[in-house]
Amino acid sequence: ALALPVVASANADLESKIANPKNWAAQAGDMFNQRYSKLNQINTSNVGKLQVAWTFSTGVLRGHEGSPLVVDGMMYLHSPFPNKVFAINLDTQKIVWKHEPKQDPAVIPQMCCDTVNRGLAYAEGKIFLQQADSNLVAMDAKTGKVLWTAKNGDPKLGAVNTNAPHVFKDKVITGISGGEWGVRGYLAAYDINTGKQVWKGYSTGPDAEMLIDPNKTTTWIDGKVQPVGKDSSLKTWQGDQWKIGGGTTWGWYSYDKATNSVYYGTGNPSTWNPSQRPGDNKWSMSIWSRDVDTGKVNWVYQMTPFDEWDFDGINEMILADIDVKGKPTKALVHFDRNGFAYTLDRTNGALLVAEKYDPKVNWATHVDMKTGRPQVVSKYSTAQNGPDVNTKGVCPAALGSKDQQPASFDPNTKLFYVPTNHVCMDYEPFKVEYVAGQPYVGATLSMFPAPGSHGGMGNYIAWDAGKGKIVQSKPEKFSVWSGALNTAGGLSCYGTLEGFFKCVDAKDITKELYKFRTPSGIIGNVFTYEHKGKQYMGVFSGIGGWAGIGMAAGLEKDTDGLGAVGGYKELGQYTDLGGSLTIFALPN
Amino acid sequence: ALALPVVASANADLESKIANPKNWAAQAGDMFNQRYSKLNQINTSNVGKLQVAWTFSTGVLRGHEGSPLVVDGMMYLHSPFPNKVFAINLDTQKIVWKHEPKQDPAVIPQMCCDTVNRGLAYAEGKIFLQQADSNLVAMDAKTGKVLWTAKNGDPKLGAVNTNAPHVFKDKVITGISGGEWGVRGYLAAYDINTGKQVWKGYSTGPDAEMLIDPNKTTTWIDGKVQPVGKDSSLKTWQGDQWKIGGGTTWGWYSYDKATNSVYYGTGNPSTWNPSQRPGDNKWSMSIWSRDVDTGKVNWVYQMTPFDEWDFDGINEMILADIDVKGKPTKALVHFDRNGFAYTLDRTNGALLVAEKYDPKVNWATHVDMKTGRPQVVSKYSTAQNGPDVNTKGVCPAALGSKDQQPASFDPNTKLFYVPTNHVCMDYEPFKVEYVAGQPYVGATLSMFPAPGSHGGMGNYIAWDAGKGKIVQSKPEKFSVWSGALNTAGGLSCYGTLEGFFKCVDAKDITKELYKFRTPSGIIGNVFTYEHKGKQYMGVFSGIGGWAGIGMAAGLEKDTDGLGAVGGYKELGQYTDLGGSLTIFALPN
Ligand SMILES: O=C(O)c1cc(C(=O)O)c2c(n1)C(=O)C(=O)c1cc(C(=O)O)[nH]c1-2
Ligand SMILES: O=C(O)c1cc(C(=O)O)c2c(n1)C(=O)C(=O)c1cc(C(=O)O)[nH]c1-2
Repeated sequence: ALALPVVASANADLESKIANPKNWAAQAGDMFNQRYSKLNQINTSNVGKLQVAWTFSTGVLRGHEGSPLVVDGMMYLHSPFPNKVFAINLDTQKIVWKHEPKQDPAVIPQMCCDTVNRGLAYAEGKIFLQQADSNLVAMDAKTGKVLWTAKNGDPKLGAVNTNAPHVFKDKVITGISGGEWGVRGYLAAYDINTGKQVWKGYSTGPDAEMLIDPNKTTTWIDGKVQPVGKDSSLKTWQGDQWKIGGGTTWGWYSYDKATNSVYYGTGNPSTWNPSQRPGDNKWSMSIWSRDVDTGKVNWVYQMTPFDEWDFDGINEMILADIDVKGKPTKALVHFDRNGFAYTLDRTNGALLVAEKYDPKVNWATHVDMKTGRPQVVSKYSTAQNGPDVNTKGVCPAALGSKDQQPASFDPNTKLFYVPTNHVCMDYEPFKVEYVAGQPYVGATLSMFPAPGSHGGMGNYIAWDAGKGKIVQSKPEKFSVWSGALNTAGGLSCYGTLEGFFKCVDAKDITKELYKFRTPSGIIGNVFTYEHKGKQYMGVFSGIGGWAGIGMAAGLEKDTDGLGAVGGYKELGQYTDLGGSLTIFALPN
Repeated sequence: ALALPVVASANADLESKIANPKNWAAQAGDMFNQRYSKLNQINTSNVGKLQVAWTFSTGVLRGHEGSPLVVDGMMYLHSPFPNKVFAINLDTQKIVWKHEPKQDPAVIPQMCCDTVNRGLAYAEGKIFLQQADSNLVAMDAKTGKVLWTAKNGDPKLGAVNTNAPHVFKDKVITGISGGEWGVRGYLAAYDINTGKQVWKGYSTGPDAEMLIDPNKTTTWIDGKVQPVGKDSSLKTWQGDQWKIGGGTTWGWYSYDKATNSVYYGTGNPSTWNPSQRPGDNKWSMSIWSRDVDTGKVNWVYQMTPFDEWDFDGINEMILADIDVKGKPTKALVHFDRNGFAYTLDRTNGALLVAEKYDPKVNWATHVDMKTGRPQVVSKYSTAQNGPDVNTKGVCPAALGSKDQQPASFDPNTKLFYVPTNHVCMDYEPFKVEYVAGQPYVGATLSMFPAPGSHGGMGNYIAWDAGKGKIVQSKPEKFSVWSGALNTAGGLSCYGTLEGFFKCVDAKDITKELYKFRTPSGIIGNVFTYEHKGKQYMGVFSGIGGWAGIGMAAGLEKDTDGLGAVGGYKELGQYTDLGGSLTIFALPN
């Protein structure tokens, strides 16, 4: 008899919830990270009439990232540390249940870039919360009852969490933060029903621990997809540095059922002082494809070998079927911190496009399409200049041309809408000793608006990922640190650090069609849902994140907050702390 | 030559700012505490179309009382402890300046009923802030520069502040809190230009320290206004108890130019255990008229002699010229915590009307109009029942039929619009030792909705102060802890503890014309202003105050928070903490 492969129980429930555009059942609205909604009641012709429908304060100050979920008439909200969860009945707007974890406040100073949390996941009647202290928690969506808790990392060592958990099939996938504490990054999958760890794949180290098969796992070598070979990571580190070498995984993950793969990126190698870790530091700063059932690595591609600028590669991988250089392609599109936007073939990891999505990017001239390596400009090489030398005017700054703020893809225009940073930096590395559980940074930074430009620190751009070209660019005073949303109503919406919620015309993003000043600066992601025949849009406000760390943590020295305080000082003239949700709708 | 009396420099600047309805230059909009605006762009026919124009988070959790001020295109916002102040340019909505006092956090637990602050005062280009630590601060309205600071009380002894300072003529008047710490209350006046104390009048003690002239200061005796006589306070206390006897002054003050008098009330006698302080405890629980230039007491009237229920008499005195029992009267109208609404002749302190404004009030049958004394029902006398006996079912509860939330007067309907509590209590006094700087309470309380009624804990009522009658009553689920506003648009507006901003028809308050859910529960006061031809209304949200103390301070035991925690427990199903301002306007 023919032995058919056993199909792991696909998560039919979540798939059907996502398929219904009335819900917002996953952080990106789907598993492709497209952040696109089929709802069209609010559209280019009426968005100007948008009103605030209702508002809700979480009772927590500091940065509010991510967005609520909406599933079958219930809204699930999260907060930054202490990671409160509210379930709100959309009929009555009453709080049905509330969950407030008791977490050790010692976790707070272990979080590099504010006490943010990027949101919840939903599946099969359960809500998943990835707490800051690295506990992963499953709750009953109806009652808030805790069903199971899994310890994912050790916060005493700086292994904390900010990422949203993501459910793909019957697994909840989570990562880890702590690149500034020398944490060795990994991605882990837990059974949604039991909380048992199913697999865990490290970013660095021995092949087996990374779940890399030297013969089957491929990467981009010499213009071709080829097996990575033995010890692909170990060979690129000096001694045991990989054990405290970072490569954390705190971004947004995506999933393609057709390839059965989860896609995500790894962060910076530790420390920020490159001379302490000669080598390519693989597989930090890389794009990964792993089999969702086993964690086995299908392919991996490193964007920034031997990072010298903290250009974490964790930004979301957006899966979209688009034409690339004229050819229909199952693409993966990624706007990296390093200022290049990458288009790869997600089925095999082939590098198709790598172009700057901010013309001011200067640390590399281009990406060599054969080797896949950026061509570093010596002047901006903090390693070549060496420790205790201030390398000036590097663009982008450490927080990249884009950081965690997720971009959207619009299947109608076939364009990507990217909230970007337009910031440069001075970077002075210095020697740092590793002490377990202590910050392990080793560089002093200053940030400032990209010189010789519009004077602002951000742009909202429309990007053609098939061609690798900026289609349009809309200047903003500050970095756009909020996640974008596109809709079938022809809209592209995002928030600003001053606190404005904005919708522009997806066909001409310079046309600002609606603008509203929410209570605080926005680093949350725009989302939408339908309830009782009415479309709503919403966004968290609550200044913070790395860009807002000065306000969030009460820091004042320009080089504090890993260099972000000075650059974003002017924010204090526009907004103050406070976490709340603002929900918009058309008038009755 | 004829020596004409020297007229103290009347505050012409503030008077003219108040006369212009585009401003909201004083906490009540005027000096009469009427909380009425002549603006009528927003009116009964269009208020249903109201939209949120913009919002602003203060970055402070806990209860937000009072309201911003608006003077000539600049808005001045305050926050609870640490009492931040923001000046916002209404053209650009940019923060022009920000003032964040450094106050000792040891003050926080010295505040009985949340870390609230009831707002700023404006006069002659200066902004006045009464900090929690009792420092009174004058700032340049244009720059925020601190011009002077005056130490008003000693927070180490529990003498803290929550009240708004009030400017009348060239003086800024302030009071003191600490009735639950045995603080001896007083009212004090400071020169607006120098910060020098001009006068200080105690609530209790020797005549000279109260600024009482035994022969000239009058009170209501035997149906007539008569001199109080010598030692009117000392005679009503046992021993030195008056020195730790309360009578604090944390409410809203009013001023009548015609009588040159400031009107205000004094709080509870300390302790809450009445058997420790036999006597009438004068002049706690009283209405006062003082000459604004000298502080001399014109007249005083005690509402609740020998308090046994914590019925502080500090609620605002609203000055209005109305018909009382058919006769045009320069009236003072006061809705007391004790459940009686008082109408007096403000020119001489004659008692004209004293009637229950909640039919459930049961601790007294009525006020004897000859003696001016409430007729106490023995069953509800916590003194007669004695210490360590739980006196059950007293209505109202300690927080009164109304607390600090100010009522409004509408000159069109000639009615008063009163946000009320509909709450009863059990009250068990016990012996307590005075220790300087420690709480000095001496009673255990539980609160609950008035039994045998609509089930809710509040009503919004329209009151005829000439007749002493409820005209209409609109039930609310929780106490209405927000200050009311009436406008020439025919509206009466207020907020609810669930967080709803509401406008009703002033002619029929059961008609809810507009309702919007702000981010958090509302204990702030509704205000209005005009900018560039457009009328705006606004209110702070931010749950807290005594009613919200459970949420604000994170208390959980029913009898905690001086008994309020249990009664308002359900609030947690509706809202969470967070201070922000919501501004409303009609669509363009
Ligand atoms: O290396 C890490 O583990 C790590 C973690 C995080 C995080 O968890 O928020 C950030 C970063 N790095 C980082 O480099 C960064 O730019 C950043 C921005 C933010 C944010 O939420 O605004 N988090 C983080
Ligand atoms: O006796 C006092 O000195 C004193 C002070 C305060 C205050 O300053 O807020 C309150 C009270 N008492 C009080 O009895 C009371 O009901 C009350 C309510 C509130 C409030 O802001 O919600 N404060 C106070």
